[in-house]
Amino acid sequence: MPDQEDTKTLYLPQYKQPNNFHHDLNVDLAIRVRHEFTRHEFGKHEHDTNFNSCLGYQTRTRHGPNTNTNFFVSYPCRHEYTNFPNTNTENSCRIRVVLFVSCPNGQFNHFPIKMSVLQHNHIAASLSSSTSSFLAQNGFDALRPQIVSVPQKKAGICKCVATSPAEQTAYKTKVSRNGNIAKLQAGYLFPEIGRRKAAHMLKYPDAQVISLGIGDTTEPIPDVITKAMAKRALGLSTVEGYSGYGAEQGEKELRARLASTFYANLGIEEDDIFVSDGAKSDISRLQVLFGSNVTMAVQDPSYPAYVDSSVIMGQTGEYQIDVEKFGKIEYMKCTPENDFFPDLSKVSRTDIIFFCSPNNPTGSAASREQLIQLVKFAKENGSIIVYDSAYAMYVSGDTPKSIFEIPGAKEVAIETASFSKYAGFTGVRLGWTVVPKELKYSDGFPVAKDFNRIVCTGFNGASNIAQSGGLACLSPEGLAAMREVVGFYKENTQIIVDTFTSLGFKVYGGKDAPYVWVHFPGQSSWDVFSEILEKTHVVTTPGSGFGPAGEGFVRVSAFGHRNNVLEACRRFKELYK
Amino acid sequence: MPDQEDTKTLYLPQYKQPNNFHHDLNVDLAIRVRHEFTRHEFGKHEHDTNFNSCLGYQTRTRHGPNTNTNFFVSYPCRHEYTNFPNTNTENSCRIRVVLFVSCPNGQFNHFPIKMSVLQHNHIAASLSSSTSSFLAQNGFDALRPQIVSVPQKKAGICKCVATSPAEQTAYKTKVSRNGNIAKLQAGYLFPEIGRRKAAHMLKYPDAQVISLGIGDTTEPIPDVITKAMAKRALGLSTVEGYSGYGAEQGEKELRARLASTFYANLGIEEDDIFVSDGAKSDISRLQVLFGSNVTMAVQDPSYPAYVDSSVIMGQTGEYQIDVEKFGKIEYMKCTPENDFFPDLSKVSRTDIIFFCSPNNPTGSAASREQLIQLVKFAKENGSIIVYDSAYAMYVSGDTPKSIFEIPGAKEVAIETASFSKYAGFTGVRLGWTVVPKELKYSDGFPVAKDFNRIVCTGFNGASNIAQSGGLACLSPEGLAAMREVVGFYKENTQIIVDTFTSLGFKVYGGKDAPYVWVHFPGQSSWDVFSEILEKTHVVTTPGSGFGPAGEGFVRVSAFGHRNNVLEACRRFKELYK
Repeated sequence: MPDQEDTKTLYLPQYKQPNNFHHDLNVDLAIRVRHEFTRHEFGKHEHDTNFNSCLGYQTRTRHGPNTNTNFFVSYPCRHEYTNFPNTNTENSCRIRVVLFVSCPNGQFNHFPIKMSVLQHNHIAASLSSSTSSFLAQNGFDALRPQIVSVPQKKAGICKCVATSPAEQTAYKTKVSRNGNIAKLQAGYLFPEIGRRKAAHMLKYPDAQVISLGIGDTTEPIPDVITKAMAKRALGLSTVEGYSGYGAEQGEKELRARLASTFYANLGIEEDDIFVSDGAKSDISRLQVLFGSNVTMAVQDPSYPAYVDSSVIMGQTGEYQIDVEKFGKIEYMKCTPENDFFPDLSKVSRTDIIFFCSPNNPTGSAASREQLIQLVKFAKENGSIIVYDSAYAMYVSGDTPKSIFEIPGAKEVAIETASFSKYAGFTGVRLGWTVVPKELKYSDGFPVAKDFNRIVCTGFNGASNIAQSGGLACLSPEGLAAMREVVGFYKENTQIIVDTFTSLGFKVYGGKDAPYVWVHFPGQSSWDVFSEILEKTHVVTTPGSGFGPAGEGFVRVSAFGHRNNVLEACRRFKELYK
Repeated sequence: MPDQEDTKTLYLPQYKQPNNFHHDLNVDLAIRVRHEFTRHEFGKHEHDTNFNSCLGYQTRTRHGPNTNTNFFVSYPCRHEYTNFPNTNTENSCRIRVVLFVSCPNGQFNHFPIKMSVLQHNHIAASLSSSTSSFLAQNGFDALRPQIVSVPQKKAGICKCVATSPAEQTAYKTKVSRNGNIAKLQAGYLFPEIGRRKAAHMLKYPDAQVISLGIGDTTEPIPDVITKAMAKRALGLSTVEGYSGYGAEQGEKELRARLASTFYANLGIEEDDIFVSDGAKSDISRLQVLFGSNVTMAVQDPSYPAYVDSSVIMGQTGEYQIDVEKFGKIEYMKCTPENDFFPDLSKVSRTDIIFFCSPNNPTGSAASREQLIQLVKFAKENGSIIVYDSAYAMYVSGDTPKSIFEIPGAKEVAIETASFSKYAGFTGVRLGWTVVPKELKYSDGFPVAKDFNRIVCTGFNGASNIAQSGGLACLSPEGLAAMREVVGFYKENTQIIVDTFTSLGFKVYGGKDAPYVWVHFPGQSSWDVFSEILEKTHVVTTPGSGFGPAGEGFVRVSAFGHRNNVLEACRRFKELYK
């Protein structure tokens, strides 16, 4: 195969494979980048026998100035090679990578590939393998892979795309893989961050790694809340205290207390509220509710579950390599230039608008005026807003805590919320979704009725023990305790904001949200993420993981013990002094 | 409109409505049933302002001998009229019913209807209303509905179909309702049973109602288990004991313990197991995994979540009125004639086969030989079995407790399971699903990888407190305690079996499952359900709610306090002596 230098995007000619991938051909692929080849991270992952962690992962592709080659490679699993089984010590630098080149029509062809990257001498001349043996842990020697050395950083561009490897010998069903899931680009972001953290800890077993990454709460749950849960748990051993199946929509008392605590005077009633095991589950259920034929918009950047769940349901087109977006999703750019609120005059009408405020990841909270605009926009377009208010308690001042503070919102909005970031319930699992009875489909059918049907058919209610915890959260003592927890994390936020500001960075968010959005103009988020991790042992989240407009940013979470946050900031100062 | 006597199925001419339904026409529909009009239950529901309970409900249609009219009416809400707002006392017997007549193409047309059922003088001459005003609680008087008297029983045939009522005045979005959800026939079965129970209790406030209906556990959770949950809960208030987000797949120790407890020597490993908040949630997630393009088979009768979740995902065709089945689903008939195991020689190939054993509702457990047949059938067809083993601990003797006891099953089966019926965790919520790494799609891609992606994207793990409970369940003391709970319910089962047997009924199930499947040949399940409820105040579940082959059966659950089971059996003896 000759070099393909002149195409704007380099796609390999389709090398059709039958189902049987177990040959050992070498197809040479010379990737020639004319001007710039921004980066290439193959990483140096440890071999990991945990099957569930064997998902592909993604690093981001940058288009440098005048780059005329878009080059995506993917390898389908997280296996790593430095300690690969059945290798002897001199094989420790062997790498087998299966390269899949994505095609414009979304079909991925399977190539055993020998790859040479012309501008990067760090990458040795070839990486070769075949798909079939990639997951076969015992087949390593048989294939005689070529030995390559891959430096850890600045080695080019690598992107993992959901792929379809196979083992020749194994039985296969005749069930086709769900094509929508195959569209997904790599694994879900946060498990990926977790895996990178774990790999880092393996690499630096003595390092004190600090996680300001996945937004996981760290502070103990106030004991007024845990005592209520313990009491409910123990009560389940008694005849009087036992309860079996609860209402799928949640316990009546909790629903009523949620309505009166968070929606007093907003016209939201107990029966508009569906208690759940968390906002992420509800987002998925909402997507099942909407089905495959709706169109949707998301803030760019945004919490990745919106886009991923949309892809899974088949609402989107294929991933578009050139713009790094899925087809048929409207990405509403939120950047410092527009105060992180989309320019709605440029946004196309969609059926569904996912909108998160205070925003994850940018940390910005939409003002009342902005939300009035949003509701007006939805109303004019007949769209449904799914308003994610998981961080509402972090809001200060007049900024709305609920979309239902905006007049008319009940006719166009669903709100999803959670105890996770207020009471440290990330592991306990409790949230809720408000679907007002005023919200109607185009034929006048109430959305809540169908959501109720989804909840009844595919869910059996949140854990009764967690619901007792939720009720305790909403007692006067519980509310005070939650405010204290929120206040603590907000102090963390301020420390992080101050640190980066003092170092000369442009810093956004942090005022009404537990996230600080730090700008690294001109740099790749994953590069910054990697550099911070490598040099400070602090885990952050690369902004580009939340969407293309997050490129050049890094999200620093304020969820951490105080001493860890202080120590992380000390290290940031060291790194960027 | 003239009577339509000669059609085999009576469908109304399409009376096209614009979106605005708020007129007050009366279209007369004379339903003439030539020979038999088996029953008609409009019920006498109480007005209920609870929006979430306003879902349509279903009563079953029977085709009597020589009946030449299939007649389906539906009303879209649970509102009731005896205490209807804005009515005066003399209106207490007013009824407005919106009748929707289902059409062969699945489109429902909206009729304001005046209905006269010729053979049933109990039903007065007319029921009239318009769709638009049905949910408008204040519009009652304005429409001057006709006064009718509806006897509670034996009044004809009524079937609720998912419908699309509208309010003229309210704002409507431009988002189309998900057509798949609209296909669903009425509400989910078990909430419907719950509502009927509640209505019965309202009607007979002094009756001691006993529920042997929805299969909800009644016995307290053994305290070795609740103590572990209380300890975990209290620990969450401490720095050492706190944990935030857990692995989406479940805590490592629990997964390992599940593998060693239930799948020792079966080749199922820790990383094949996904801990969840229960089997119902996992069934829904599995459907999202499979997507819209698969075909599926179910046992008939079967747990209704399989079919309903399939309909929601768009895997099925429309509901076929004549056979009471959804198009494109393969219903595998399980009756006494075939020992409740489908005649696989008559079953068409499908991608997915839902198979529950011990079976809910028939109580039959498939033998080893039968399961070998099933696995062979799946393997030959390249199908995936979703094996629901929620009642496995009720199995005695050599009958397999897991599909993975069958050689080769790992290449064709997923197994879903739950703590609900072993430890009384119906409210605590904890289950698991096994997706062996050997299970592959047609392209060789491991199913488990995609399921992992679904779990990571749309779920955040089961509650950590529940998981501690699960771990305690699997301790030696916990296992012994669970066996005791299971043993208790099995004694209940025997009492129920003996009772119905002594009354001369043919009784099935009950040996390896907590369900007794009682045959009432020639009778309608809903009739029997209603008669038992009315005359004994015992709630059961009508067999036809599980599928057409369940008609003529009633499921009696063994989940109950002993004295309640004994009392229920005493009343059965009274009723059927």
